[in-house]
This record gives sequence, structure tokens and C-alpha cells, in this order.
Amino acid sequence: MDQRVSLITLGVADVGVARRFYEALGWECKEVEDTVFVQAGGSAVVLWGREKLAADAGVEDAGAGGFGGIALAQNVRSREEVDEVLAAAAAAGARITKPAAETFYGGYAAYFADLDGHLWEIAHNPGFTLTDDGALILPF
Amino acid sequence: MDQRVSLITLGVADVGVARRFYEALGWECKEVEDTVFVQAGGSAVVLWGREKLAADAGVEDAGAGGFGGIALAQNVRSREEVDEVLAAAAAAGARITKPAAETFYGGYAAYFADLDGHLWEIAHNPGFTLTDDGALILPF
Repeated sequence: MDQRVSLITLGVADVGVARRFYEALGWECKEVEDTVFVQAGGSAVVLWGREKLAADAGVEDAGAGGFGGIALAQNVRSREEVDEVLAAAAAAGARITKPAAETFYGGYAAYFADLDGHLWEIAHNPGFTLTDDGALILPF
Repeated sequence: MDQRVSLITLGVADVGVARRFYEALGWECKEVEDTVFVQAGGSAVVLWGREKLAADAGVEDAGAGGFGGIALAQNVRSREEVDEVLAAAAAAGARITKPAAETFYGGYAAYFADLDGHLWEIAHNPGFTLTDDGALILPF
């Protein structure tokens, strides 16, 4: 299995509502058959009905709510950008689960939950390289 | 907010056990302070204690189990490769939640849940470009 993630599919209650949330954050969304695709570097983020995703994956869905055991992170280029993204997310209806604060690794980060509870960490981490095209390169 | 996912952090019950699972699939893991990092294209996959992730994100954790509302996908270059990855995952202890089958979009895909229940779809989708370096490019 290659070290690669092609798609990150977020199960959502309402694809249109979720799309408008991410569009409010500036994302360009393409919708195909009730599925929203967003090119994100060499991967794509997909917004799809939560019940459809569970059925497609062959798993039971006990319903949304609670911690799903996963978090996405977006590393940004400055502390100011952390604050800007958090403010935009809050304005779009996100719940700030952890306000921006210094981190143990010398960075600055915050978390929000999107309208379906999916967690995003927005972080400035001076120890991780962020290339001009947005790729994250681990230092080890 | 840029269209970019820097880190995908999987909360796991035991970092060492999770690391051995992904190493069994051929991934090169780097461990720093009980956190495992895997370079995956321009992003990184991180394995971290589930309770630490929940605490870091500022959310309650009702415990693992059930559908977390998210799935990762790895697109591969052939149907044979879908079968190969599934067999390797099953041999490493993954639960196959959906056996490989034709998809409505003319592809071939299957899902497995890793040792902590995180869902991976392994898919061959002739409609999505996969570059030589593994980047997925949406067709629209």
C-alpha cells in the first residue's frame, strides 16, 4: 500500500449546507450527483451524505455526534493566518472547540468543528516545511 | 482558508500496534514522542493516541466504535492492485467492511477498517487521473 491519501470524504447531513460552509471559507466546490469535490493539493476533499458514505463503506451508522476519532489539520504560514481562518470559520457557523494558543512544539494552533462536527486544526508550526504550493514536508 | 489538508491524524488505542499495522502494509513510519508520522504526498498521516487527540482538540470522547463519519480513500492504478492491498490489509488484521466490487462509476473498489475502525476505501477509478508521483487530479 503506497503512502498516499487520495480522497478524504466527510460524511455530512446536508451536502448543500456543507458546501456553503466551505465556500464561505473560500473553497471552490464542484458538485457531481449530490457529491461535492474540492481539489486539495494532490488529494481531494469530498462532501457526501453521511448515510450514503456509511452504506458505501458497508458499516452501520449510529448517527452523528461525538468524537469520530480523527482530525484534519491545515498548516498555515503565520500566527495571524491561524486567527484569520478561525474567525472566518466561526463566522460561517463553525464551533471553536479549542481557541488559538501556544503549542508545546513552539507553534500556535486552534481547532474548530465544522457543521457536521468534523474537526479541523489550524496550525502554524515553524518546524514543518510548507512549500510554495502548500505541500507539507516532515522534517524527519 | 486554502484548499489544503496538511495532516490527517488517526486517533488510535495503541500507537505501537497501529504503527505495526501500517508497517505491515509497507509504510515507512517515523515516531517522535509517541506520535507516528508518515509522509503521504504533500500531506502526512499521523497516528496518535485517541484520548490525546480528543483532549488536544478540546472535545469529549465517548469512546471508539461505530462510524466516525469520515473515510479515507487511496486510489490505485489497477483492479489487481485493489485486490493486493485488500489482501495485505486483511493479513495485517484489518476488517474488510465491503469486498471489492464494481462501482457505479465504472471502477472497482473495496473498504477495510483498520485496527481502530478507521475506514479506507481502496479504489481503481479510471475517471480520476493519478499522476506518476501519486497525486490525484479531479477531472472537473
